[in-house]
Amino acid sequence: MPIQWRYSCDIMSANIIHPVILCGGSGTRLWPKSRKDKPKPFLPLLGTRTLFRAACERASDPAQFAAPMVVAGPAHVDLIEAQAPASGLSIIVEPAARNTAPAIALAAARIDPDAIMLVCPSDHHIADEAAFTAAAASAAAIARAGRLVAFGITPDRPETGYGYIKRGEALENGFVIERFVEKPDLARAKAFLADGGYAWNGGIFVFRAGQLLEELSEHRPAMAEAVLASVAKGREEGTRFHPDAEEFAAIEGDSIDYAVMENTQNAAMVPASMGWSDIGDWAALQDAVNAETDGNNHAPENTELVDCRKVMIVSDGPRVSAIGLEDIIIVVHGDEVLVTHRSGAQKVGKLDGASNQ
Amino acid sequence: MPIQWRYSCDIMSANIIHPVILCGGSGTRLWPKSRKDKPKPFLPLLGTRTLFRAACERASDPAQFAAPMVVAGPAHVDLIEAQAPASGLSIIVEPAARNTAPAIALAAARIDPDAIMLVCPSDHHIADEAAFTAAAASAAAIARAGRLVAFGITPDRPETGYGYIKRGEALENGFVIERFVEKPDLARAKAFLADGGYAWNGGIFVFRAGQLLEELSEHRPAMAEAVLASVAKGREEGTRFHPDAEEFAAIEGDSIDYAVMENTQNAAMVPASMGWSDIGDWAALQDAVNAETDGNNHAPENTELVDCRKVMIVSDGPRVSAIGLEDIIIVVHGDEVLVTHRSGAQKVGKLDGASNQ
Repeated sequence: MPIQWRYSCDIMSANIIHPVILCGGSGTRLWPKSRKDKPKPFLPLLGTRTLFRAACERASDPAQFAAPMVVAGPAHVDLIEAQAPASGLSIIVEPAARNTAPAIALAAARIDPDAIMLVCPSDHHIADEAAFTAAAASAAAIARAGRLVAFGITPDRPETGYGYIKRGEALENGFVIERFVEKPDLARAKAFLADGGYAWNGGIFVFRAGQLLEELSEHRPAMAEAVLASVAKGREEGTRFHPDAEEFAAIEGDSIDYAVMENTQNAAMVPASMGWSDIGDWAALQDAVNAETDGNNHAPENTELVDCRKVMIVSDGPRVSAIGLEDIIIVVHGDEVLVTHRSGAQKVGKLDGASNQ
Repeated sequence: MPIQWRYSCDIMSANIIHPVILCGGSGTRLWPKSRKDKPKPFLPLLGTRTLFRAACERASDPAQFAAPMVVAGPAHVDLIEAQAPASGLSIIVEPAARNTAPAIALAAARIDPDAIMLVCPSDHHIADEAAFTAAAASAAAIARAGRLVAFGITPDRPETGYGYIKRGEALENGFVIERFVEKPDLARAKAFLADGGYAWNGGIFVFRAGQLLEELSEHRPAMAEAVLASVAKGREEGTRFHPDAEEFAAIEGDSIDYAVMENTQNAAMVPASMGWSDIGDWAALQDAVNAETDGNNHAPENTELVDCRKVMIVSDGPRVSAIGLEDIIIVVHGDEVLVTHRSGAQKVGKLDGASNQ
């Protein structure tokens, strides 16, 4: 296993965690506010911070975290630099979108192999940041002991939209993963919730960079080889790093779950109960807003609601007046108006407006 | 009764009916499309014609009708002249809004006293124009025989938003009115519908101009006197006539129903089944649209509807996308967006946007 020796080990002994923030995904289900040129991570969907900015800031305590490394497509580099906190943030510019496994491997190949990396999506919301950093510390301890660690989000409802993690034997700071479970139907999701041994796979991972590359070499050797080649042939440009486009584009994309986590013998999880939401659609955003405000509505000042319950209004300008609505979400953005029942929120991404941008 | 002799009787023998079109009313329940400076009558709410234009054209057959006389406030004179058919339309410019009785009396005082006048609101929809003109002819015959005639709209539902007319003994072309009934509660409205002897009072009237003034002099002498004085002191300006403002403004306003129709001994009605709607709110407009198109939606081309039933969308530009809605009306106009359940449509006029124009 030569990979882990290619790098110097200058921070080997530190307990510092290296945040790796993934800026993929189009967020079409949050159309019309999320648009191709300014997608979900770069919008202040909750409060005044963008989701990307929040992702940076929740892993910014210098006692625990190194400066973040961001993996993103070229279209969003300017947004990232504009929204990044004043820190030593660096960017890996993906020449093509090839899912999470190659993106994470790019970062792993740019970090000291003995460093602990914390992989986070840039478009999730985490209400309890102290719980997040505590879980990260637990996961880092397990990762240092040689495991690939997933955050297991404690479920609070029988969600059918996420994959689940079944925990196995206990470790000091978490659990071995018994198995990964694909998105279940409602009956199974209810059984998982009742069982208590299942958690959501939120796409947050902690591992030693070198181990991730070793396991990728084992389970997806061609992918690992192409990633390393694209890094070897890549070029620096200030804080940006450009992997070689030809090598990278040839990769057959896959998720880190399929490529590594479901194949490794070393999968572990840490339970995380931290007010997490993937803000997967407008209904999820409404839930996240309501959980924080304890209110029924997310209404800017230029709205009027009469006889409304569980109505969320998001407008970039026009006044919105609503009467007699329940479980309805209204979004006014630019030249588009979206009105959807909560139950239809998952279909937003398939609308003409969202898919023909 | 000197009033009826003040005028020449040049068209006494003709069967011509004189349309008098009233352009009062603010139409706030059709906000945000209906605005103070361009209210309901001047909007093409159904098809491409404005309601005012349709009101002119449905009474435009020269074999049956004289050129229309319009009674309107000064704010809307330009709209009226812009939208009027090329005909001999004349306008009486009301110096102040004093409800329907003074407005109708102004017109009566400007028409030959033996002429038959047909008073029509300018903001209603009538699907079956042949039924309308037939009813007008029947009403004119009864009016010539000395009665004040109301159109009695055949009800098709237990509507609680309209006044009712109870018919009495039959006449050759209609019925004597037994009594007028204020807006009923639902139980009474259902009983009226089951009874069959009740019709809606749609605010459409036919009478001999001189008789209207005579009866107004009898039941509201001060009003009649002030109207005649304001006409006597008024001034012509091309096709516009300006009654004297001081005399007219001093009038205590009242509806033609209260001032005359409910007091006269000569009230009659003609049944009218003509696809009438007062387009009283967005739900009424949706009903009128659906009755004509047999469809569920009134959707311009820049809309997309997924899993929607009975959704009406009216937009002046922005695309509107809707998912999973039922019985919802969406109106986008200028800088305002309205989303209301059908059941809340009557509350639109009370919204901040509608009432603070």
